[in-house]
Amino acid sequence: MAIILGEQQYGKAESRVVRIYRDGPRHEIRDLNVSTAMRGPFDPAHLIGDQSNVLPTDTQKNTAFAFAKSHGIDSIEHYGLELARHFVRDIEPVDGARIEIEEFAWERAVVDGVPHDHTWMRAGREIRTAAVTVDATGEYVIGGFKDLVILKSTGSEFAGFLKDEYTTLQETKDRVMATSLVAKWRFASSDVDWNAVYPEVKAIMVREFATVQSLALQQTLWHMGKAVIEQIPSIVEVRLTAPNKHHFVVDLAPFGLENHGEVFIAADRPYGLIEAQVLRDDAPAAHDAWRASAGLA
Amino acid sequence: MAIILGEQQYGKAESRVVRIYRDGPRHEIRDLNVSTAMRGPFDPAHLIGDQSNVLPTDTQKNTAFAFAKSHGIDSIEHYGLELARHFVRDIEPVDGARIEIEEFAWERAVVDGVPHDHTWMRAGREIRTAAVTVDATGEYVIGGFKDLVILKSTGSEFAGFLKDEYTTLQETKDRVMATSLVAKWRFASSDVDWNAVYPEVKAIMVREFATVQSLALQQTLWHMGKAVIEQIPSIVEVRLTAPNKHHFVVDLAPFGLENHGEVFIAADRPYGLIEAQVLRDDAPAAHDAWRASAGLA
Amino acid sequence: MAIILGEQQYGKAESRVVRIYRDGPRHEIRDLNVSTAMRGPFDPAHLIGDQSNVLPTDTQKNTAFAFAKSHGIDSIEHYGLELARHFVRDIEPVDGARIEIEEFAWERAVVDGVPHDHTWMRAGREIRTAAVTVDATGEYVIGGFKDLVILKSTGSEFAGFLKDEYTTLQETKDRVMATSLVAKWRFASSDVDWNAVYPEVKAIMVREFATVQSLALQQTLWHMGKAVIEQIPSIVEVRLTAPNKHHFVVDLAPFGLENHGEVFIAADRPYGLIEAQVLRDDAPAAHDAWRASAGLA
Amino acid sequence: MAIILGEQQYGKAESRVVRIYRDGPRHEIRDLNVSTAMRGPFDPAHLIGDQSNVLPTDTQKNTAFAFAKSHGIDSIEHYGLELARHFVRDIEPVDGARIEIEEFAWERAVVDGVPHDHTWMRAGREIRTAAVTVDATGEYVIGGFKDLVILKSTGSEFAGFLKDEYTTLQETKDRVMATSLVAKWRFASSDVDWNAVYPEVKAIMVREFATVQSLALQQTLWHMGKAVIEQIPSIVEVRLTAPNKHHFVVDLAPFGLENHGEVFIAADRPYGLIEAQVLRDDAPAAHDAWRASAGLA
Repeated sequence: MAIILGEQQYGKAESRVVRIYRDGPRHEIRDLNVSTAMRGPFDPAHLIGDQSNVLPTDTQKNTAFAFAKSHGIDSIEHYGLELARHFVRDIEPVDGARIEIEEFAWERAVVDGVPHDHTWMRAGREIRTAAVTVDATGEYVIGGFKDLVILKSTGSEFAGFLKDEYTTLQETKDRVMATSLVAKWRFASSDVDWNAVYPEVKAIMVREFATVQSLALQQTLWHMGKAVIEQIPSIVEVRLTAPNKHHFVVDLAPFGLENHGEVFIAADRPYGLIEAQVLRDDAPAAHDAWRASAGLA
Repeated sequence: MAIILGEQQYGKAESRVVRIYRDGPRHEIRDLNVSTAMRGPFDPAHLIGDQSNVLPTDTQKNTAFAFAKSHGIDSIEHYGLELARHFVRDIEPVDGARIEIEEFAWERAVVDGVPHDHTWMRAGREIRTAAVTVDATGEYVIGGFKDLVILKSTGSEFAGFLKDEYTTLQETKDRVMATSLVAKWRFASSDVDWNAVYPEVKAIMVREFATVQSLALQQTLWHMGKAVIEQIPSIVEVRLTAPNKHHFVVDLAPFGLENHGEVFIAADRPYGLIEAQVLRDDAPAAHDAWRASAGLA
Repeated sequence: MAIILGEQQYGKAESRVVRIYRDGPRHEIRDLNVSTAMRGPFDPAHLIGDQSNVLPTDTQKNTAFAFAKSHGIDSIEHYGLELARHFVRDIEPVDGARIEIEEFAWERAVVDGVPHDHTWMRAGREIRTAAVTVDATGEYVIGGFKDLVILKSTGSEFAGFLKDEYTTLQETKDRVMATSLVAKWRFASSDVDWNAVYPEVKAIMVREFATVQSLALQQTLWHMGKAVIEQIPSIVEVRLTAPNKHHFVVDLAPFGLENHGEVFIAADRPYGLIEAQVLRDDAPAAHDAWRASAGLA
Repeated sequence: MAIILGEQQYGKAESRVVRIYRDGPRHEIRDLNVSTAMRGPFDPAHLIGDQSNVLPTDTQKNTAFAFAKSHGIDSIEHYGLELARHFVRDIEPVDGARIEIEEFAWERAVVDGVPHDHTWMRAGREIRTAAVTVDATGEYVIGGFKDLVILKSTGSEFAGFLKDEYTTLQETKDRVMATSLVAKWRFASSDVDWNAVYPEVKAIMVREFATVQSLALQQTLWHMGKAVIEQIPSIVEVRLTAPNKHHFVVDLAPFGLENHGEVFIAADRPYGLIEAQVLRDDAPAAHDAWRASAGLA
């Protein structure tokens, strides 16, 4: 028996890169959280402490900031690709690079009815994400968002489920359904109009959530993923994670009040958690596209 | 020497009250976080464990949910007043009630260009707040918001400051200024069109932040508070807390790149923290309007 | 009517100061979160943007780090006093200084049964706090802790409480009582053996929590505060904030199981919140000892 | 081309199960956060909304609480195995179950020098974790912890690393090294003395962190994983994720002070992030032991 080093990777997490474009009086802003990770023959760093193959995480951070100037940030997917390609092509020992980016949205402050040139408010809506992997097998781009909190006050049922000795839940034909959606979608290529696709995907998912008469959150997720793949040819796979953020009807009968789905308590924990993967049966191989870490999530 | 009980209060914090109006196909939603506190002769509960004057916090919670149905939630200020008046008027030992409410904003999901009848997305922007106090001296309403994250990419300076032996900061005539603003404003009466005032206050503050050429965050706060009081007669006092969320210019010179206020690192800690109170010199007495707790905030 | 500037203050919040003592092989560590605030004639900074009286918050931060070296960190109370005195005495326009400090505890890693010379693990227990105010009226020191999470599985009742039409809670003679305690205590002077007092206060509070047969959380708080003042002459006032972290008995009867206070669900929200102040009737005036902010907490 | 459902799973996340043993005056407490997930033929729930194979997440929650009474909680690994076996054996459509548990540690309050019978304080140290998978291929148990915050003030170097045009970092032969360690270890069988192994693993990891002269965090992780596998035969694989929590030396020279590794600023973001897997070359197949989700982590 021998003890061996398995997978490993290292990088700089959560560099908060803010880029202002100020070529005229009307500025633009991009606000990112950038994490980079390197994959390759770093065994000597582990086994004997030899750093000669190790590009410091501080250097990775510097590169992220420098690229924000030299390459600009058109979309997080493109910026991530530029960074990943650089690490794999230009840093000799690096075999693969993984770039994960979150983008925080800002909207222009409105002053006297007019969007302002250089003042913004943080738009608290969903956070757009990208995960780019470049390695010997190719280039992989995963778009996505997280923290899209969405709720419907009707059009959701839960009935006909399996019952056992521990089941006390009542069936319902009309409930509040709410989630804080995490969605990720894999592209077939790395040549896509990223900023055009993003709002399309979001609009499709929101439409399906709103309009499907939901018999289960599972069914809603399936429809969301399926519709995206049907309508956006560049996307071959969608993965969805959806906490079922329970809104329980409050019993007001002791106070002489009826409550026909009008007053709810929003619960924190526990919560349901539904996950699904939807994909084209002819999707190209994903290789390491989905692998975020060396195994620990 | 004797040891005495000083101030005390108790209540139920953070009841998550969600109210759906569903009188027709087009639903409405109000999503609140409600905290109630009672003030009065509760010394026996402390000194000898006698609960006969103590309305349980569980009952306070029930009342908050019941009122969401029986009184509805037109505005958080009005709903808070109704709750506070009930506790003071109807629960005999209670001398004073303090109701603090946060409201989470939702915006209708847009499906095929049309706002949807019963689906919303959480609007991540600022959280509207209210703090209502009713006691023997009267009724006090404080409106407000928190977490309004706002940034300007120019129009902000910091120079001419005091220097001592520990000062290394460079002066600047052009910097990014960003904050996550907490604002609270005190009304002169409890008879106000609450939902009309709120967007006015916010618009004034955003306008001042955007348009004042800022020589200091202090100056910006003063202008924000002053403009609100000048333009909204029902408001007599404004209090502002503003973390200075530093955005540091990244030195790109080692990489042969110029950086004229284009690439910044957003820092987490430490941060500046600026606080100010602005008020009319003829403002009526505040009594306990600003007192949130028994002394510990 | 005129609009005036009321209270204001400014400072640098949350400087993360880590001090290592390494005079021999056995190192020592102090790990602090330091916030400083200045009070004084800063009206020109607000009204006309004149910074000539304003010591930058960056300088305040530098001072905190420099003092960690030049004055050392014997206790957070003493270090806070040194900082506050410096700002008031040495920086001419400053009238008052408020220093708030959190200290994160570390305990030595144990290797082969022996505490290690230069390796520690963060002890996740309560965070020790200090709030020091120095101004023209004198010096004020408040010690304290927060996040002391404590639970008793019996010895707690809640019965005999006031009931109204919204009351559904059942009385109980045996429940779990748990809280995450925030405690602050005011000293009569600024000449105290700070590091000796702290464990004494904590031990007294823990003892009272454990041994008082609690008829209400209010009663437990009173006993905690009273015992501290009785037994520690240098402390003249105690303030306590205690969320009642509910542990609800789970109904296992539908599954044919009895549950005599054995299985609970720990709830997040809502929670009770009990606050109390206990003091000597001859306590010296507190002046601004308790004032943390310019009014917004 | 067809669109297909790929992997999916569902369950109840974060049930906060608290178990008190009160068979005599000396109580015991176990405090858990339990997440359960089911794997199996749930395609109809997704594709057509048919719930007949779906055991509600509410039922899963009930089961977790009921088992806390009926089976007890000897160790989180054993309790997780009992739950997973139940779902797979007793609920007909379920093919596989994944149980993830966090355990919050409490230590007895000490009153007058004596550990108290029924009062505890939350020990803020690391959170013990378990992830149990039972499916047609067998039973898999992964032990672990998270949030073990550990720091050494010397005995750590970083030098000899790869340099490129973006490298500005200086080499160092003596730095502070700190991390908040996440560790998971896979057992070869599901018949282990779980509560005996846990403190052994932790002690080995802490020892290696403290005593290895670290040339890189990578090297420290390798030694930690290797030592565990060498010394604990029941463990065949270790996975480690370690943020490099940077402590930067503060430049005190402008203030006329030397700083020989004595005063540091603890930074929040960005941080290095190092991950590694260490395993026996004859480790049995892991199958789905490491798979937490349906693909989204």
